[in-house]
Amino acid sequence: MAIKCETFSFEVQAQDGTARAGRIETAHGSIETPIFMPVGTQGTVKSLTPEDLRDEIEAQIILGNTYHLYLRPGLDVIKKHGGLHQFMNWNHPILTDSGGYQVFSLKDLRKIKEEGVLFQDHIGGAKHLFTPEKVIEIQETLGSDIMMAFDECPELPCTEDYMQKSMARTTRWAKRCLEARTRPDCALFGIIQGGTSEKLRKLHADELCKLPFDGFAIGGLSVGEAKDKMYETVEFTTPMMPDDKPKYLMGVGKPDDLIECIARGVDMFDCVLPSRNARNGQCFTHSGVVNIRNAEYAEDMAPIDPDCDCYTCKNYTRSYIRHLYKAKEILSARLCTLHNLHYFLTLVGQAREAIIEGRFEQFRLDYYAAKED
Amino acid sequence: MAIKCETFSFEVQAQDGTARAGRIETAHGSIETPIFMPVGTQGTVKSLTPEDLRDEIEAQIILGNTYHLYLRPGLDVIKKHGGLHQFMNWNHPILTDSGGYQVFSLKDLRKIKEEGVLFQDHIGGAKHLFTPEKVIEIQETLGSDIMMAFDECPELPCTEDYMQKSMARTTRWAKRCLEARTRPDCALFGIIQGGTSEKLRKLHADELCKLPFDGFAIGGLSVGEAKDKMYETVEFTTPMMPDDKPKYLMGVGKPDDLIECIARGVDMFDCVLPSRNARNGQCFTHSGVVNIRNAEYAEDMAPIDPDCDCYTCKNYTRSYIRHLYKAKEILSARLCTLHNLHYFLTLVGQAREAIIEGRFEQFRLDYYAAKED
Ligand SMILES: [Zn+2]
Ligand SMILES: [Zn+2]
Repeated sequence: MAIKCETFSFEVQAQDGTARAGRIETAHGSIETPIFMPVGTQGTVKSLTPEDLRDEIEAQIILGNTYHLYLRPGLDVIKKHGGLHQFMNWNHPILTDSGGYQVFSLKDLRKIKEEGVLFQDHIGGAKHLFTPEKVIEIQETLGSDIMMAFDECPELPCTEDYMQKSMARTTRWAKRCLEARTRPDCALFGIIQGGTSEKLRKLHADELCKLPFDGFAIGGLSVGEAKDKMYETVEFTTPMMPDDKPKYLMGVGKPDDLIECIARGVDMFDCVLPSRNARNGQCFTHSGVVNIRNAEYAEDMAPIDPDCDCYTCKNYTRSYIRHLYKAKEILSARLCTLHNLHYFLTLVGQAREAIIEGRFEQFRLDYYAAKED
Repeated sequence: MAIKCETFSFEVQAQDGTARAGRIETAHGSIETPIFMPVGTQGTVKSLTPEDLRDEIEAQIILGNTYHLYLRPGLDVIKKHGGLHQFMNWNHPILTDSGGYQVFSLKDLRKIKEEGVLFQDHIGGAKHLFTPEKVIEIQETLGSDIMMAFDECPELPCTEDYMQKSMARTTRWAKRCLEARTRPDCALFGIIQGGTSEKLRKLHADELCKLPFDGFAIGGLSVGEAKDKMYETVEFTTPMMPDDKPKYLMGVGKPDDLIECIARGVDMFDCVLPSRNARNGQCFTHSGVVNIRNAEYAEDMAPIDPDCDCYTCKNYTRSYIRHLYKAKEILSARLCTLHNLHYFLTLVGQAREAIIEGRFEQFRLDYYAAKED
């Protein structure tokens, strides 16, 4: 019989409309939801230290990529350190993806079988087989606080027939993931697929949510579909998910998306957007996007966001950061990443407060009003 | 009549053989010598914040490049901030070079005249004229605590005849620099040229050291000459310089060079080496150089330098840092730069202590013995 995670729990602390505020407990501490998880693909949230993440950004949980870490540095190295936490010196919660998303994106280099996915990696070109069992083994070696089940994320558009077959396989893989667990300190989430079809989402949720996962994710969104389709899908999918478990929307999104999907009952988010865009000089602010590379900021003495109290905004002008960006200085990436992630974490923190105080709808209106100014 | 700097002073606190320990006062605080100055070419010591520099590395003074800052972001931007200190948020001493070194390295793009140097810049290709007066005006706009006089650093080898003519012009330029000063809070150092010839160094030092500079530098070394030639030149040049002023060896060097030139009476150093090499994964340690990219460190659980107490060495393994380097992660540059600069600053700090305690020669022997282990 499959083991259960003994260190994981979730409670809903407040609800305001469909929006929820909650608390997750893990082996490496607690997480207050709704939460945004910075992405640390290769064992580092690009340009930042764990101290930056914890003290400056107040990140509570970060995401690691199974596929990338499995290929480089490889499991032996991470095992020798005692896990990903110790390897990267982050002693707080970590969620790892299953690698499925990356593996399935290697279109010409992979072959899907019932057993799993055979693929050639993008670094050395070697052949690997990811099975549900293998993916759990990897994530347990990483020592992830929240592991994700191995799923197929079918490329859209796809036929309803293919989607159904894929979902059925993902469900079989989900069961094998649950069976493969050996560590009682690593929680495991299942992933609901089904594209933007309410019928298919319902079909898959009905099967998947019967399984004893510690939480559930909505996969297969933010892959190019229209924004209103995405919101609509989230809106009809979250009610299909058990309310006593965390609801995680994978790979989303922009600040507006966080607000809209929190409104629709999502508890957890992750996205490379704030850190990736920061490296391109694109900063998110209370009044919209600031592209720091633009000439208009050359002599701008204001901080990136006058309403932000992050390290970057307290200490530097747009003019200085634009100079760093134009001069290709590493510090530009670092300062903009700090700001963007601070902005995202502050946003979900304020949403949480508003939910607890029963004024989330007003918060949402104020958020959009500030952008209009 | 030329003004004098009212905020600058220097005292020798201890001498041990030819090695000196001293203290410099500037408008932005004091500096204990011997000192190493991290280089912040473009208004940032690459990858680091001022807090990193001050709290982690204990840098006391950093160097800014006049040529680079003049071209980008340009003086208007820096003037608007109130100077380089405010622009980059570093409220401690700054030394700026004169731009001479960069301008003279643009071999095909510059023309030397008595008035100054006409050159085309390496960014936009525009034409600029650097004169002694211009170079002082720029450095005063930057608000430098220690400005450097505009000098010619002749490409070696050059004829004795050319060197003599060049030195005479550098002396005339030095006088014009002194005359051009308007700020009583910006000190000004003169630069002694003369290649590796004792005769020429003496000729130039005799002229230059008569002038009322706040300190003197040895220029034109570390440009490809043999190491023993460099040490020899430093050894015969420092006695030509006034003992009641700081003696600054420009653009030097490696840890061994610091030890050897402190032994020969140098008080101040700057070099891009520790930060540039850090970005290539080359780390300086008590037992020699560690090239973190080497495969031998893939599973090495030791810190970069087991005898170092910097942030990097306290928190990360060689294995992790090698992973970051191989994965082209920005954090690799940051962690290695932190370590290298910490190593350099600790080294000069320990040399200072040894000088004050009259055991510099033993310190120097211990330093080499540790490398042999
Ligand atoms: Zn900010
Ligand atoms: Zn160190």
